Amino acid sequence: MVFLRRRLIVLVLLGLALATNPDAGRVQADEGMWLFNNLPRQQLKQKYDFEFPAGWTEHVMKSSVRFNSGGSGSFVSSTGLVLTNHHVGADTLQKISTAEHDYYHEGFWAKTPGEEQKALDLELNVLQSIEDVTDQVNMAVNAEMSASEAFVARRGAISTLEKQSLDKTGLRSDVVTLYQGGAYHLYRYKKYTDIRLVWAPEFAIAFFGGDPDNFEYPRYDLDACLFRAYEDDKPAKIEHFLKWGKTAPDELVFVSGHPGRTSRLNTVAALKYTRDTQGPMLLDWLRRQEIMLQKFAQRSEEQSRIAQDDLFGTQNSMKAWFGKIGGLQDPEIMGRKEATEKALRAKIDADPKMKTAYGNAWTQLEKTQQVRREIATQYNVLEGARGFESKLFDIARTLVRLAEENEKPNRERLTGFTEAGRESLELELYSTAPIHDDLELTKLTDSLGYLLEKFGGDAPLAQKILNGKSPAGRAAELIGGTKLKEVAERKRLAEGGKKAISASTDPLIQLAKMIDPEARAIRKKLEEQVVEVERQAYAQISKALFELQGDSTYPDATFTLRLSYGSIKGYEEGGNKISPMTTMGGTFDHAAKHGNKDPWALPESWHKHKNDISPDTPFNFVSTCDIIGGNSGSPVLNRAGEFVGIIFDGNIQSLVGDFVYDERQNRAVSVHAAAILESLRKIYGAGALAAEIGR
Amino acid sequence: MVFLRRRLIVLVLLGLALATNPDAGRVQADEGMWLFNNLPRQQLKQKYDFEFPAGWTEHVMKSSVRFNSGGSGSFVSSTGLVLTNHHVGADTLQKISTAEHDYYHEGFWAKTPGEEQKALDLELNVLQSIEDVTDQVNMAVNAEMSASEAFVARRGAISTLEKQSLDKTGLRSDVVTLYQGGAYHLYRYKKYTDIRLVWAPEFAIAFFGGDPDNFEYPRYDLDACLFRAYEDDKPAKIEHFLKWGKTAPDELVFVSGHPGRTSRLNTVAALKYTRDTQGPMLLDWLRRQEIMLQKFAQRSEEQSRIAQDDLFGTQNSMKAWFGKIGGLQDPEIMGRKEATEKALRAKIDADPKMKTAYGNAWTQLEKTQQVRREIATQYNVLEGARGFESKLFDIARTLVRLAEENEKPNRERLTGFTEAGRESLELELYSTAPIHDDLELTKLTDSLGYLLEKFGGDAPLAQKILNGKSPAGRAAELIGGTKLKEVAERKRLAEGGKKAISASTDPLIQLAKMIDPEARAIRKKLEEQVVEVERQAYAQISKALFELQGDSTYPDATFTLRLSYGSIKGYEEGGNKISPMTTMGGTFDHAAKHGNKDPWALPESWHKHKNDISPDTPFNFVSTCDIIGGNSGSPVLNRAGEFVGIIFDGNIQSLVGDFVYDERQNRAVSVHAAAILESLRKIYGAGALAAEIGR
Repeated sequence: MVFLRRRLIVLVLLGLALATNPDAGRVQADEGMWLFNNLPRQQLKQKYDFEFPAGWTEHVMKSSVRFNSGGSGSFVSSTGLVLTNHHVGADTLQKISTAEHDYYHEGFWAKTPGEEQKALDLELNVLQSIEDVTDQVNMAVNAEMSASEAFVARRGAISTLEKQSLDKTGLRSDVVTLYQGGAYHLYRYKKYTDIRLVWAPEFAIAFFGGDPDNFEYPRYDLDACLFRAYEDDKPAKIEHFLKWGKTAPDELVFVSGHPGRTSRLNTVAALKYTRDTQGPMLLDWLRRQEIMLQKFAQRSEEQSRIAQDDLFGTQNSMKAWFGKIGGLQDPEIMGRKEATEKALRAKIDADPKMKTAYGNAWTQLEKTQQVRREIATQYNVLEGARGFESKLFDIARTLVRLAEENEKPNRERLTGFTEAGRESLELELYSTAPIHDDLELTKLTDSLGYLLEKFGGDAPLAQKILNGKSPAGRAAELIGGTKLKEVAERKRLAEGGKKAISASTDPLIQLAKMIDPEARAIRKKLEEQVVEVERQAYAQISKALFELQGDSTYPDATFTLRLSYGSIKGYEEGGNKISPMTTMGGTFDHAAKHGNKDPWALPESWHKHKNDISPDTPFNFVSTCDIIGGNSGSPVLNRAGEFVGIIFDGNIQSLVGDFVYDERQNRAVSVHAAAILESLRKIYGAGALAAEIGR
Repeated sequence: MVFLRRRLIVLVLLGLALATNPDAGRVQADEGMWLFNNLPRQQLKQKYDFEFPAGWTEHVMKSSVRFNSGGSGSFVSSTGLVLTNHHVGADTLQKISTAEHDYYHEGFWAKTPGEEQKALDLELNVLQSIEDVTDQVNMAVNAEMSASEAFVARRGAISTLEKQSLDKTGLRSDVVTLYQGGAYHLYRYKKYTDIRLVWAPEFAIAFFGGDPDNFEYPRYDLDACLFRAYEDDKPAKIEHFLKWGKTAPDELVFVSGHPGRTSRLNTVAALKYTRDTQGPMLLDWLRRQEIMLQKFAQRSEEQSRIAQDDLFGTQNSMKAWFGKIGGLQDPEIMGRKEATEKALRAKIDADPKMKTAYGNAWTQLEKTQQVRREIATQYNVLEGARGFESKLFDIARTLVRLAEENEKPNRERLTGFTEAGRESLELELYSTAPIHDDLELTKLTDSLGYLLEKFGGDAPLAQKILNGKSPAGRAAELIGGTKLKEVAERKRLAEGGKKAISASTDPLIQLAKMIDPEARAIRKKLEEQVVEVERQAYAQISKALFELQGDSTYPDATFTLRLSYGSIKGYEEGGNKISPMTTMGGTFDHAAKHGNKDPWALPESWHKHKNDISPDTPFNFVSTCDIIGGNSGSPVLNRAGEFVGIIFDGNIQSLVGDFVYDERQNRAVSVHAAAILESLRKIYGAGALAAEIGR
């Protein structure tokens, strides 16, 4: 499933390196995650004879929705209905479920507006405008500054721009670093925070085939659910929403969504860091998480329910990373990256002026990989909080930092603690989403053990953290002793500021305080010795590319709105032709092929209404559109900008898309628009809801 | 489950460090895995007023059976019946199962002798005598020798002693290193290699509760199965076998079996190596194995069947290691080890003569830990073959080494390739046990990826091994191209010697040849810079202990016959009193408590005969006997030397038993003798078989 886990965004920070594809300007493949203010008009004209009609891009942009929990979606009615994937809605489904009502598993349907269930901490963003602020950001930095000074000055300039924009427009305002510093754009969003669940199918059909079928094709998944955005306690009135449309194989389609992260221009040195250090560390950690969650879930049905969304997310990330590392371990793929880099460097070296201006970038980027390697463990454990895996610890750290950051001028604050981001921070901090002591305890015990393993049991910092106890003993003390489960206590501490934090005897607050100097120090090291140096070096590479290829390139994904294009098309795998579409009727055959056993056991509703549905209704399809994690829930559109499907996955071959797009086999997997309506009407008896869609 | 996986014995070699417990001579707890030629007569007299009757020890020794696949057992009839655990027999059950007959899952019962199924590569050993050969071994080494020379000389002396004994007696002859070089004893075994399966229950009751209940208590498992030893194609006539007896809580019981490995006298430095390096590396690898096997098994029912025994073994090892590392990460346990070591060193330092003779041992052992840390990765990947996880690769390596070792004089050969060990080697090498291409491929792909991760993708050796391919591509080439699945081809290569190996174009033979110089080099480094140095240093510590405490200590476990003692006794856990015995009737309640769902779903036979069994029949019980992995299948005996139960597990609290025995909570878990007969008679309709037992 191609969505992002938010916590993972933090955890994989060490891998962050945004980039552009040096080949992008010239390829005729359906490649690219294009900026809405720099669309591939020429390519679309050449390959598909398509020109954007007037209003098309604004309409699509304002119909597209970002789920801040890690996915995409779209407005599909004037009455505020938002369509996304079940697995994007899962975060909310999990949080509103209880031991009595497991909506995550059983599905949900609000037959009346009054039954719609409010999400506890969900924020949706709808892009309103993009402004190029590259000059303003770069003005803050000058050549005399050290990397350290430059980082702070740049961050300050960005915070100020965001704050000014928020004050002026009232819109959420984020400055996005594109082309690794080649450009800075200010994105302004309309924000919705009163989001209610309307309908979700059963997990068994939303994720039919489970982990074994994940990232595979053919597929038969109804990975969809519906929310509704509210304003002032009433369904939001939506001007731009998508109408249902049609498409057919080989016809041009678009994907408008929020790809999370790609690394296509990463230098070979950076890719080798991912291959040899970051990837293996992350995979070991994900395996550890999966095993821990499995064992936890096995103990009882309630524990299984509590852990299910975490477990899914972990398995999903693991399979995705497994595919990525597999790509980097394939000499053919790495060979292509090496050849491309070599060719680019040869061109630069051939021109003395370019050589002086840009030729040193690769050496700089080799050095930063070395720093990454040196600090990876320390960073992941402390600042990435892999040593303190617990929602309550995250809350404690946020409170500790909030108190400290609040005392600084806005432009000097850590990212995430500035005034422009305050509302979003509080939405999460004061969430009433359930926190389960037993899961917290299991996670924290395991991660304190991880910390001991990584630091060594004799390390003074480890001993200070463990405080003379075993991981299990220390975790029990921390989780048992904290009061941070109470939202009122969080508010008290947040409002009490530094004084309240200093006076707090909460053991988790004390732990977060105790390790914060070390965590901040390693973060500073990353920012100053890696992030800023890489920004400047990649900016050089990007400039070289602009010079050589013009601006007809796309930047690497940044969890901001992008447009991809392609067509519905099968592919070959191991000599077999994979057909692009499946049908709803085929679902029953696929289940039978696997003995109708979990995870191929269909829900009762499907068995019951087997004869009601039209078996030929298209169910899932693949397209050549270029997507990545974060695109989950993105609408697939036809030439007319009408909704024809919803992205929910990529095939196994798409996973190397992090580094390289290959049209031969890379495919995005979608639920077909027709299947959503057919199941709402025939299986879920939700004809009225189906009728509301598109109107 | 407290058994050893044979391949793991190889893999954890870096952790090997045999030791004695400095406290052992003085404790009054039921501690110790005692040598049959140095039994704790005084302790038994004092605590239990027990003296061994004449003939008791010889009878028990000759009734006890070692399963070379990694467990223990006992003769239970004059007609060759051998009782062990289902999970010890599992290796054979897996090997004789097919897609049509899954005996591992469904159970097995030979109603006539003709239906008894021959194990494909099982060797049983029955200890006949022990001879102290310490002087002969030590004579080969002198003070002028370097550690390297000493290692070779000692190994040569051992090989010669074994060969001479084999020639003289015809018995399998192994020199066992005890007290880490404090003593060397020659063990002579009667060997049985025609072993046939007679009866096994269903997996669902043998491993009732599955991984979640593993190493837990209370339990309800019928973890038992029956083999029969044959000689000359007829049931072996057995003089020493166990008769059924009775016992009761608090009465003295014994365990006669083959504990695999403990590390109780490991120095604190060695324990920290285990805690910080060996354990975490192994656990990461086991998690990786478990995830890989799970994903493989999910794909189809047949793949699930093929992987089931590997998966069980991996999960079992992981849970055991998890408990061990948990113990070492507990400051209380490590604190005890530190205090004990400090006290011993103080005593030695207080006596100038002892200080000169033994005082330097700890420094030496700190140095060897440093070497272990340095070579761990290289050793595990190459010599431990974690980079080449595949039965076919193991076969290829054995063939390559066999050809080379055969050209050397017996005393210079690698352990395992000497003449005394030849028969056992060939039993395994020429086994017709099924090898599944798809599992081989999956394992080898994953482990080549592991190799790349550990060495780094650019490492010249890694590139040589991968030969320009991805892990998946290279594994396909190796597994697809080898002919080593055919036993005839293995024989041809073994008999053809060095010439045949040189001429072979088999890709796996070529790979094994190619990496052998590097693998041997790292092995040599371990043997010379670690094993021999540690042997000498631990021998000093052992001598110091002998001087201070006499010889009333037991050596660390060595997968050789030991006697433990204790009594059936409950314990306290988290304030709850755990009662020592469960009943067969309780099984149904335990299943119901877990919704009768897998792994708590009872087999049909149990439901069917629920009303036939006497519900009060004791089923499982715990005792204070000191056991560890390898003890699985060991008979539990009463004062009269009669069979009262069979060890199959230890509780969670026993897992730290690798380092320290604590009678308060450490418990061995057994199947009660009565339950075995009751289920044979009432559930499996095997009354005749039940009647044969004990006669």
